[in-house]
Amino acid sequence: MTKEEKKDLIETCSSLSKKFAERASEYDRKATWPVKDYEDIKNAGLLGIMVPKDKGGLGADFLTYTKSLEQLSTGGASTGLTFNMHNITAGILSESETKDIGGSRGKAMNDFRDWALGEIVNERKMFASANSEPGIGAHFSALKTTYKKVDGGYIINGYKLFVSMLGYADYYVVAARREQSSGDLPEISFFIVELDNPGIEIEEIWDTLGMRATVSNNMRLKDCFVPNDKLFLGTEGLGIFKLTREPHWVIGGYVGTYLGICQATFDYMISHLKKKKIPGTDQSVINRDWVQRDVGRLAVELEGARALVYKAAKMVDEHRGKPETNVAIHHSKYAVSELAPRLASDAIRLCGGSGIAKSLPLERFYRDARCGGLMPATSDECLLYAGKSALGFDLTQIKETYW
Amino acid sequence: MTKEEKKDLIETCSSLSKKFAERASEYDRKATWPVKDYEDIKNAGLLGIMVPKDKGGLGADFLTYTKSLEQLSTGGASTGLTFNMHNITAGILSESETKDIGGSRGKAMNDFRDWALGEIVNERKMFASANSEPGIGAHFSALKTTYKKVDGGYIINGYKLFVSMLGYADYYVVAARREQSSGDLPEISFFIVELDNPGIEIEEIWDTLGMRATVSNNMRLKDCFVPNDKLFLGTEGLGIFKLTREPHWVIGGYVGTYLGICQATFDYMISHLKKKKIPGTDQSVINRDWVQRDVGRLAVELEGARALVYKAAKMVDEHRGKPETNVAIHHSKYAVSELAPRLASDAIRLCGGSGIAKSLPLERFYRDARCGGLMPATSDECLLYAGKSALGFDLTQIKETYW
Amino acid sequence: MTKEEKKDLIETCSSLSKKFAERASEYDRKATWPVKDYEDIKNAGLLGIMVPKDKGGLGADFLTYTKSLEQLSTGGASTGLTFNMHNITAGILSESETKDIGGSRGKAMNDFRDWALGEIVNERKMFASANSEPGIGAHFSALKTTYKKVDGGYIINGYKLFVSMLGYADYYVVAARREQSSGDLPEISFFIVELDNPGIEIEEIWDTLGMRATVSNNMRLKDCFVPNDKLFLGTEGLGIFKLTREPHWVIGGYVGTYLGICQATFDYMISHLKKKKIPGTDQSVINRDWVQRDVGRLAVELEGARALVYKAAKMVDEHRGKPETNVAIHHSKYAVSELAPRLASDAIRLCGGSGIAKSLPLERFYRDARCGGLMPATSDECLLYAGKSALGFDLTQIKETYW
Amino acid sequence: MTKEEKKDLIETCSSLSKKFAERASEYDRKATWPVKDYEDIKNAGLLGIMVPKDKGGLGADFLTYTKSLEQLSTGGASTGLTFNMHNITAGILSESETKDIGGSRGKAMNDFRDWALGEIVNERKMFASANSEPGIGAHFSALKTTYKKVDGGYIINGYKLFVSMLGYADYYVVAARREQSSGDLPEISFFIVELDNPGIEIEEIWDTLGMRATVSNNMRLKDCFVPNDKLFLGTEGLGIFKLTREPHWVIGGYVGTYLGICQATFDYMISHLKKKKIPGTDQSVINRDWVQRDVGRLAVELEGARALVYKAAKMVDEHRGKPETNVAIHHSKYAVSELAPRLASDAIRLCGGSGIAKSLPLERFYRDARCGGLMPATSDECLLYAGKSALGFDLTQIKETYW
Repeated sequence: MTKEEKKDLIETCSSLSKKFAERASEYDRKATWPVKDYEDIKNAGLLGIMVPKDKGGLGADFLTYTKSLEQLSTGGASTGLTFNMHNITAGILSESETKDIGGSRGKAMNDFRDWALGEIVNERKMFASANSEPGIGAHFSALKTTYKKVDGGYIINGYKLFVSMLGYADYYVVAARREQSSGDLPEISFFIVELDNPGIEIEEIWDTLGMRATVSNNMRLKDCFVPNDKLFLGTEGLGIFKLTREPHWVIGGYVGTYLGICQATFDYMISHLKKKKIPGTDQSVINRDWVQRDVGRLAVELEGARALVYKAAKMVDEHRGKPETNVAIHHSKYAVSELAPRLASDAIRLCGGSGIAKSLPLERFYRDARCGGLMPATSDECLLYAGKSALGFDLTQIKETYW
Repeated sequence: MTKEEKKDLIETCSSLSKKFAERASEYDRKATWPVKDYEDIKNAGLLGIMVPKDKGGLGADFLTYTKSLEQLSTGGASTGLTFNMHNITAGILSESETKDIGGSRGKAMNDFRDWALGEIVNERKMFASANSEPGIGAHFSALKTTYKKVDGGYIINGYKLFVSMLGYADYYVVAARREQSSGDLPEISFFIVELDNPGIEIEEIWDTLGMRATVSNNMRLKDCFVPNDKLFLGTEGLGIFKLTREPHWVIGGYVGTYLGICQATFDYMISHLKKKKIPGTDQSVINRDWVQRDVGRLAVELEGARALVYKAAKMVDEHRGKPETNVAIHHSKYAVSELAPRLASDAIRLCGGSGIAKSLPLERFYRDARCGGLMPATSDECLLYAGKSALGFDLTQIKETYW
Repeated sequence: MTKEEKKDLIETCSSLSKKFAERASEYDRKATWPVKDYEDIKNAGLLGIMVPKDKGGLGADFLTYTKSLEQLSTGGASTGLTFNMHNITAGILSESETKDIGGSRGKAMNDFRDWALGEIVNERKMFASANSEPGIGAHFSALKTTYKKVDGGYIINGYKLFVSMLGYADYYVVAARREQSSGDLPEISFFIVELDNPGIEIEEIWDTLGMRATVSNNMRLKDCFVPNDKLFLGTEGLGIFKLTREPHWVIGGYVGTYLGICQATFDYMISHLKKKKIPGTDQSVINRDWVQRDVGRLAVELEGARALVYKAAKMVDEHRGKPETNVAIHHSKYAVSELAPRLASDAIRLCGGSGIAKSLPLERFYRDARCGGLMPATSDECLLYAGKSALGFDLTQIKETYW
Repeated sequence: MTKEEKKDLIETCSSLSKKFAERASEYDRKATWPVKDYEDIKNAGLLGIMVPKDKGGLGADFLTYTKSLEQLSTGGASTGLTFNMHNITAGILSESETKDIGGSRGKAMNDFRDWALGEIVNERKMFASANSEPGIGAHFSALKTTYKKVDGGYIINGYKLFVSMLGYADYYVVAARREQSSGDLPEISFFIVELDNPGIEIEEIWDTLGMRATVSNNMRLKDCFVPNDKLFLGTEGLGIFKLTREPHWVIGGYVGTYLGICQATFDYMISHLKKKKIPGTDQSVINRDWVQRDVGRLAVELEGARALVYKAAKMVDEHRGKPETNVAIHHSKYAVSELAPRLASDAIRLCGGSGIAKSLPLERFYRDARCGGLMPATSDECLLYAGKSALGFDLTQIKETYW
């Protein structure tokens, strides 16, 4: 993308976000898909944000994507987070340079890639992910969902949690372990399951503190058949290796969302404080030096987190998969995820009693903010990763990671 | 109370609390009064917890009360908080030794006191408070609600926010400024307004992040007539003086509630962690040393806040109204109010993704926890009070306080 | 002790402390024993503070002792810390009720106890401790110093670190492992080594950031002979059991010292701020609300730590050795040890550039403050202990502790 | 500079720093100028690091300078800090594009600039600064030091604190207020005073907690004569305007130093932990997950501060003097100054008892680390600046700043 195109894209996202902001409260309250937001995204041509230009997409780099996601998420955090789920698939595929791989495997990869990117760009289809499972979170090495080869395809059985957009998205990338494969490094593969596949069942249990409009319900797979050509990238066993070596999508994809929540919280706080008066006076509370000082501290923390997020994203663009890039991603994931609830809590304290009314967005930010650190890699996993890295452990070794 | 009576009382509260816990989710969701909890409280004879024994009550001291409230609030935070609103009135009246005051003023005080305590003990009536107003919070020196003397009573006009239990409680203690009185130290008086007084109107706007079952709606007073004998303690101008000299009820009354939320959060976290497994294993996560260490830190913080709360309550019993007592109250209010959201946030982080489900209480604790620091004295007011005190300012001077 | 005696004792300590404060800078700079402070302590009859009245001492309880130590340490932190080393021995002996133990073992215990307490009270002798060793800290189960039985006594060989007062104190309680004993629970015994025992050698390496006047040098024991009657309490194998069951002396003994440092830091900060002007004005900086607010926060933290320290000390007096008492000790140790450096750092920030001059005590407080969390149980060990306790581990099991 | 030149410069600094590290302990202990370090700096041609290439210097940009200073300061913090004092003058002069200013004023400016840069590059002269005064810190609007015009020059009278390198540096830039000028915006000018000017007297009072080798003594100016051509940039009244509009040198100059201290602390901690064993075992403590986690958190904080420092420096290069640049400088100053003592305190806690020995550098880092937040703009001034900026105050207005 040219510099101008990047700027335009981010501005488009910023302007869509204002519409999302108006709808966010209702989607949150009802815990329903932000369907109108998705339509705006589709109409703006953003489904292909990560798809290479030669495949009909916008061809955004990771930094531009991160900033775009941040903008979208200031208005619609759940919208942004689920849009990112779509882009995990689009992004990984776009980065997979399959052209030079020959033979039948190369063909399978190319065919799959072309099909998937085509669905996105031409058919406006959305992709979602089904990874987490009960008791193991997103730790792929312990996956209980299995697949086995059958004629013409694969049969999957298992149970998935937290499948965002389940029921709305068109396709679900499902992670499964090959039936006989076990041990520390089981063979993990991904499959594309269509929404109307009769082998899946949706269990509607989603009712949570925050990020409610992600509608992340549970998916049960019962002898779910997937044809050969819907094996992800036409290749078995891609799973853990990819996650360990290039975690920027599954870890660093949504930091933009939580940065957006932080920014929205901060902006709302500023505007609220400007209007709030010192009790019994006409003077704004922003004239109190302790208010200035608290706001100042939060500004430093916000900019510190932002600097880590942008730095990590830029490193993905320049040195994808390098150990220092992966560490930077984990740094940024931790920083922004744990800043979010702290910032929201302080913002409520500063804004005072009216700040908790459901008619204002601050209480939603407070609820949404607490969710980031629970998504993979969790805040504690990020710290262990960062610490191990600083202490000289080799994090290209899967056993040193949390997968 | 004897030692044994204190123990029994606290145990009664603890056992009621288990019932409250079962109902809390529903009351929270609907934002309705916890009516069954209130009935339990009434049936257990707790309405008179602060009423002296010679007036038919339990005659609890402030420390025992605080521990009782803590217990009640572990199960029903909104129940505890509103019950405390009732006890602010009961407690202040009980502490007011009016016996030796002679003359017509003495008679008016005694009559009022006997009437009010009698309503509580014999008629099982609940009292609530109406203090806060738009733009001034609970800063009494800036009250806009006014009263004027008329034949046989007073006429009140004004608008009150955050009136907990409004619509359920039988009586409302309304703070108002004498019409012609102004300046830094206006004459503030309190009046008892009955629920069915035609001069009040309830505006149902309550819809908040947390403490939802307190149902703290707005009250509009339009030429609201109150007869002479419903002037609080038969005395005009009690207001700011009382608040400045003996803030233990209006500030320190509900720290028990937020301590209860902290304890409930901590207990739930412990039980959740014990059941949570290290992904892919049968081992509990409590075997991880970093989990132990985080839990340890939270335990120290919780016990530190508790120690401040109990110490302040004991000082109220031993040195009511002394400057050091009032400082201790503000210390404890700050400590427990700001610990609560931090603890709840960390508890969610430690418990992981399932911790945000609305089927579990943790997400409610997280929401309720953020509200304590917004109630008077707010966390920031407490810090200023504590700092001024340490720096040698004279906080018996009203201008140095936040009233 | 009567209430009056307690008050007098604490006042005596407070008044001695003012003298210590005048000398502290010089002792710190030179890293020499605070000999004049020790003489004041001896002249005031404080060596026997823990010795029961019937043995000629003051018979202080643990809470009164803690408050006394706090006072002494506000002026002389190193003095207080080393005085506590003396009292570890005095206190453990005083608590050991040996009267009813019959037979030769009972006689040996009684004789030893009478001798040691007599030395303290009648001969004004000071006791020190030699526990830590290279690479193991104070983890007794891994002690490398050994002893073996010989005719008339024992021979000890080993190397001890951080022996406070080494060269000044009259007697050293040396921990050693029985030569053939090993495994998880080796037999650990204590011996009294006199200063002029030819079997010890002092290695003068002490030169540290803080607590410099404790002069905690290294002791080498080479075939050091100790006669039978200098076996601690006439009993082998006392070690780990005692430490695990009743850690109040070795863990909780010196929290009073670090609380004293905190208090001294806070008091100095207040006095400094009162004199400090807003640049270019005659107004004190204490009129700035953010200064008040920061001071307020520190006041809450200080009082929170103090409340934990006093509560734990009171529990020692009322429920010595109970699990909840031991947990409370670890809570207080952590809270006060980690508050100290944070408070000192903030105090310097608030006091500004002149606060780092060596002519003022603040910079010494900052240095001394960092040392508390390194002494057993270290801050991190305290957290693990607190966390395990909250999570239901049985900390009477030695394997669950850090010994 | 080319990319290659930048890399070489930073490497040169890194390699000099290793030598500084060996000498740092002695300079710190004696509080003497790090003369050998200065010689290394001179021999490496670094005095002219900020001098434009066309004037014979290296022509470093601000980001490269910041990284160079960071490197130098990892080994010699006091060396780095004082070297920065020199570069404040060199940098401000280098940035002052005087070429196009005509007339006698232009000539005076050019002559001064050429002279000063020539002294640096050709004569290897070092410049220092004399700004702070008793009771006002570095708040220029309240300066008490005055100057008046006399024949051939100016007469200065006053008293300056914290003049780093006083007695070693060749020239001192002294800030003074024009005698008759007062009010909110007095006329502040700068003058070059040579070391051997008989009008100055050095008061040797420097003895501090940290940054001891900066030897920042006091300077008394008694009828100190300065010839016309030593008026800074040949222009009176430059002072406050410059400081308000382009604070990057006086505020942001030394963040590189404190970032260097942070990095050195972190690096030392890592190497120490790798060698430290779990007590009684041969296993390194780095295998403990809570150690990894704590190290991880510190790594995130360090990288967050670094990201802010580099970002601000880059903004200076790209948008010097813009409001957003100035805010970024204050963000970075706060972040790194307050991280430093927190990081050092945690590092000591993690490294344990041996970490406080004066034979190891950690205790010096802990002492040096606390000094950054006291230098202008102090940490609290930075927060107020950051807060005001976020709240919409106009910080190009001098009254809104701390000058």
